[in-house]
Amino acid sequence: MTNLDREVQEQILTQIQTTFPQDHVLAEENDVRHDIKDGNVWVLDPIDGTTNFIVQRDNFAVMLAYYESGIGKIGVILDVMNDNLYWGDGSSTYKNDVQIRLTAKPLRQSLIGVNTYMYRTNAGGLLDLSHESLGVRAIGSAGIEYVNILEGKIWGYFSNLSPWDYAAGAVLIAPFGYITQQIDGRPLIFEGRQMIMSVPSNQLDKIKAYLK
Amino acid sequence: MTNLDREVQEQILTQIQTTFPQDHVLAEENDVRHDIKDGNVWVLDPIDGTTNFIVQRDNFAVMLAYYESGIGKIGVILDVMNDNLYWGDGSSTYKNDVQIRLTAKPLRQSLIGVNTYMYRTNAGGLLDLSHESLGVRAIGSAGIEYVNILEGKIWGYFSNLSPWDYAAGAVLIAPFGYITQQIDGRPLIFEGRQMIMSVPSNQLDKIKAYLK
Repeated sequence: MTNLDREVQEQILTQIQTTFPQDHVLAEENDVRHDIKDGNVWVLDPIDGTTNFIVQRDNFAVMLAYYESGIGKIGVILDVMNDNLYWGDGSSTYKNDVQIRLTAKPLRQSLIGVNTYMYRTNAGGLLDLSHESLGVRAIGSAGIEYVNILEGKIWGYFSNLSPWDYAAGAVLIAPFGYITQQIDGRPLIFEGRQMIMSVPSNQLDKIKAYLK
Repeated sequence: MTNLDREVQEQILTQIQTTFPQDHVLAEENDVRHDIKDGNVWVLDPIDGTTNFIVQRDNFAVMLAYYESGIGKIGVILDVMNDNLYWGDGSSTYKNDVQIRLTAKPLRQSLIGVNTYMYRTNAGGLLDLSHESLGVRAIGSAGIEYVNILEGKIWGYFSNLSPWDYAAGAVLIAPFGYITQQIDGRPLIFEGRQMIMSVPSNQLDKIKAYLK
């Protein structure tokens, strides 16, 4: 957490609350919490990848999503240092002004993005699953991991995340047949932290044997 | 290994052998091997990060180094997709036409680049050491890891490498007080694979307690 996290959050929330005064907010900083299933909810991570932001000045993102009664309607990820905006409504996704096309390859021909703690302790069976891929990569920002899925650089993403870490990404990858759920198969709950995964839904059956 | 690896190697080696017919070569493809201590030796990795090259079309590098009787005289890394050339003579290093300035922070305020297998199995004590840092990152290309050291994004790099993976990087980071050696403290031998590290030499004493 930095002062800048809070400043960015306040700036964005002021805009939302001015334009949509009836809407609710679920955001990382300052304990701004609201039940995702209750009405119109904006989900904000003002700076995702804070350690990267501080140390690297790269590989961090601003993430914003909009949900209605728990259904994702808008997702936005800004890859700040590359100045690329990924945005979509759950049925199509754009990188700046170009619509993204994406077809996931089989896991065996792919790399996966992982939380390094889960990987090394085999939490959720992630280490076992990783052996079915070409290898793992670790970037340190959920937002940039979702960007890497959209860019076709990783096949899926496995981490221990809060709602603002996955709310926007889940909407952006949905048009390409991706599902975001808990590693054990339960749905997202949009509170606290869970071990979650974002993977091509038509390959779920193949990976279930490794996950727990 | 791809056909392109070999094609790139042949193109570069043809240039070297035409211009410096007396010199020797140590290169990844086609078993081109020469003792680093014997005369003038060019060390080439035509495509470093081959899996990234195939899967991601990003995060791969071309690496070339020149050694005289085992002493590094020239290092070159081309970050292909960002079109940045890092080059130097061991006393100064440039990114394209700008000289690089770099002062390593303490490990506790830094991220480290790791080989994920060594990290998860604590090979060389790497997992223990990682707990003294802000975290680990895994990119899948030695060349891009050395770029990330030069860009100040990671403090050091720990992996299981062949000579062409570290020959250029070792020269490029030397001007900033970095040393490249085996994790257990032995010098580089420029043959086979070793567990090596590239770290700020003035912090070696602090990390020795964790390494083995």
